[in-house]
Amino acid sequence: MGGFFTGRTLTGIGRDLRAGRESARGLVARVLESVDKDLNAFVTLDAEGAETAARWADEELASGVDRGPLHGVPVAVKDIVDVAGLPTGMGSGHFAGYVAEADAACVTMLRDAGAVIVGKTGTQEFAFGGSGDVSVNGAVRNPRDRERMSGGSSSGSAVAVAAGMVPLAIGTDTGGSVRIPSAFCGIAGFKPPHGVIPTDGVFPLSRSLDHVGVLAATAEDCRLAYDALTGPAEAVPSLLDGSSGGGDRAGATPYGRVAWIEPPACDPEVERRVRALFPDAPSERIDFAGLRQVFLAIEYSEAYDVHAERVAEAPGRYQPATLARLEGAGRMPGWRLVRALRERDRYAEEIAVLLDRYDLLAMPTMPIPAPRIGATEVGLGPLTALLVSLTSPWNVLGLPALSVPAGTVPADGGGGELPVGAQLVTRRGAESLLFTAAEHLAR
Amino acid sequence: MGGFFTGRTLTGIGRDLRAGRESARGLVARVLESVDKDLNAFVTLDAEGAETAARWADEELASGVDRGPLHGVPVAVKDIVDVAGLPTGMGSGHFAGYVAEADAACVTMLRDAGAVIVGKTGTQEFAFGGSGDVSVNGAVRNPRDRERMSGGSSSGSAVAVAAGMVPLAIGTDTGGSVRIPSAFCGIAGFKPPHGVIPTDGVFPLSRSLDHVGVLAATAEDCRLAYDALTGPAEAVPSLLDGSSGGGDRAGATPYGRVAWIEPPACDPEVERRVRALFPDAPSERIDFAGLRQVFLAIEYSEAYDVHAERVAEAPGRYQPATLARLEGAGRMPGWRLVRALRERDRYAEEIAVLLDRYDLLAMPTMPIPAPRIGATEVGLGPLTALLVSLTSPWNVLGLPALSVPAGTVPADGGGGELPVGAQLVTRRGAESLLFTAAEHLAR
Repeated sequence: MGGFFTGRTLTGIGRDLRAGRESARGLVARVLESVDKDLNAFVTLDAEGAETAARWADEELASGVDRGPLHGVPVAVKDIVDVAGLPTGMGSGHFAGYVAEADAACVTMLRDAGAVIVGKTGTQEFAFGGSGDVSVNGAVRNPRDRERMSGGSSSGSAVAVAAGMVPLAIGTDTGGSVRIPSAFCGIAGFKPPHGVIPTDGVFPLSRSLDHVGVLAATAEDCRLAYDALTGPAEAVPSLLDGSSGGGDRAGATPYGRVAWIEPPACDPEVERRVRALFPDAPSERIDFAGLRQVFLAIEYSEAYDVHAERVAEAPGRYQPATLARLEGAGRMPGWRLVRALRERDRYAEEIAVLLDRYDLLAMPTMPIPAPRIGATEVGLGPLTALLVSLTSPWNVLGLPALSVPAGTVPADGGGGELPVGAQLVTRRGAESLLFTAAEHLAR
Repeated sequence: MGGFFTGRTLTGIGRDLRAGRESARGLVARVLESVDKDLNAFVTLDAEGAETAARWADEELASGVDRGPLHGVPVAVKDIVDVAGLPTGMGSGHFAGYVAEADAACVTMLRDAGAVIVGKTGTQEFAFGGSGDVSVNGAVRNPRDRERMSGGSSSGSAVAVAAGMVPLAIGTDTGGSVRIPSAFCGIAGFKPPHGVIPTDGVFPLSRSLDHVGVLAATAEDCRLAYDALTGPAEAVPSLLDGSSGGGDRAGATPYGRVAWIEPPACDPEVERRVRALFPDAPSERIDFAGLRQVFLAIEYSEAYDVHAERVAEAPGRYQPATLARLEGAGRMPGWRLVRALRERDRYAEEIAVLLDRYDLLAMPTMPIPAPRIGATEVGLGPLTALLVSLTSPWNVLGLPALSVPAGTVPADGGGGELPVGAQLVTRRGAESLLFTAAEHLAR
């Protein structure tokens, strides 16, 4: 723990840059000093490209051109996202030697906002899995306990932020891949509504479910980055702002009306820890099991479409765990996809009704703290299913979801504490409510 | 052959009704007299309901209320389409005893146009197949040769028209089910653009591909029925009307520019017979094989979604051939559906380019004349694939397609002649071009 950026916020960094106490070039040097190779967060560091971009950022600031909160800020990018001139490795043996010719759309957006791309971060192979330990580059390690999973698939992005190597990173999230490692590593991760940040130049996992998201130490820094990329989020009134004090005020908080969504299977310590943040929120239930079926039918069908030829022609280039999952994905029947797409519409209506009564749905991000690297099963069941159990519904429905640090719980088997994440979900377009809530929770 | 309606047109019938030479009640009696039970076209005759509707039609006409060309005309309806108060049997043991409570949307449209519903016609079980000999009600027989298939799945509708039992029938078409039996029985069948006639109240086979269509002795009668159901089709200028005599006039005919689409596998006699109708049409090729893959992925996935619970709970109530096809449908992988939906968009663009150069695409409706009942293979290959080989692309693309009688060819194995159908396809909304062409071809 404890790279240069630990404890520093984007606001603080921006103030230092503008006051001349720090330079973008200096920050790049800090990144390179802070990289802890043992954690395996980065697969590529682009010292030269970062230097050039930082020099440019410094010159712009000096000449009065100010691109906003990301100007001069070092950012790490997940290694399934193309950065022109750098390898995109996908965590796989399949893409050895591949160098991207153009920037992904989100990278262009970062550069337009003045950010300095410092390198590429380790990803679960083809982003297909949430553990963070399946990659041709080896496991990414959790900075809180190096024998523990980082979570994935945006493993390196989360670890680079959590260990203070960078103040901000870009990830992708198809079933939880931004939020899972954020929760396991004790940082904040934000998955915007579907489609808001374009996925052009991002290697697809499941096109209907893929989202680009941001990871930072705090929700406030996620908000700053999200605003910088997409324009300031519209400030949305909570349901309480419209009420005249009467009527149903269930779940009312200073930041809106909150429902507690009961997790179907959860470590009791984790549940207690997160529930304590929302003591007055009424409990609601949603059909996690049904939503999981919808998620799997879509993800598996779309993922195998992307990989069918590679599986047929060069199966040995996959990590064994990825190949096994893909082979299963190839067997997902088409009729289940047809049904899933219809069910998704029905669930969207159900959740819309819930979100007419509540501003925010709160639940743990992960039902467990980070397991040990290599585990495939924990007390609550097989890990693959557990890892996305609370996050994937919000990919199916395309709703904005934020994971924020929510303290720690004792590690199983003794020895230290492990981070817990609280997940907040809201209506599409009401992202500002998530960040307002996170601000209150952080006080 | 030779029921009362043989050789009579909707125009002639309408003239007789309005001149008092015939009554709607009289026509119902003619239908009942004309039914040839051995052909197995009808599964339900509703003498009483038809009488009542006919009396009402007669009274309206007598009092000066004229609902147009279908007023007082007896119509037969395929037995997967709900008619209030009558059984809908689906050709299956699964729906024994089921009686529809409400009319399907297309039946409401027929009644609004003054038509008299006389009964329900035999269908391939659940409309899943084009042979016409798989049904709990037994094979529907081809009036041209009773040992031959009628074609399907709108088997009874085609046979009832072909044998002169009714002047008009309603069918459905998911891969060719209106056009196949029309071609095999020597009548006209029209599949409108997707969605123009609603499918509410029609038992689904594959929702994306299902169409309601009309069957009559002539294309002109199909046009009258289609116009009566949907409002008069817009008269569309052919590509030639816009040209000043110069430019590319390939395939020019008095009714527009025609391309001959080369069938991938076709009985040479059938091909010669249909090709002769379009002697100057340049040959074009389309990717029938690729379109077939798209068709199967969509049809199988959607069909099994409809049937999954029935297959699991009461497989023995299906005809063995239907069950075998459904089980195969259940194994269609989801990734092939994902790919098919993307490919469909690509094919739609390709065909749109072709339809920028030609008004009409012409080809045989069926690559073979009607095989013997019970056959599963013919010289050209397995029958299941052949039956929809030339018709199903137009379901995938949702384009209007008309099959018109195109003479006969000698039956294989000697003994008589069998009908051949010519299929015409055009742009969505340009249906009038199909009917104008058919009028020229019939001269």
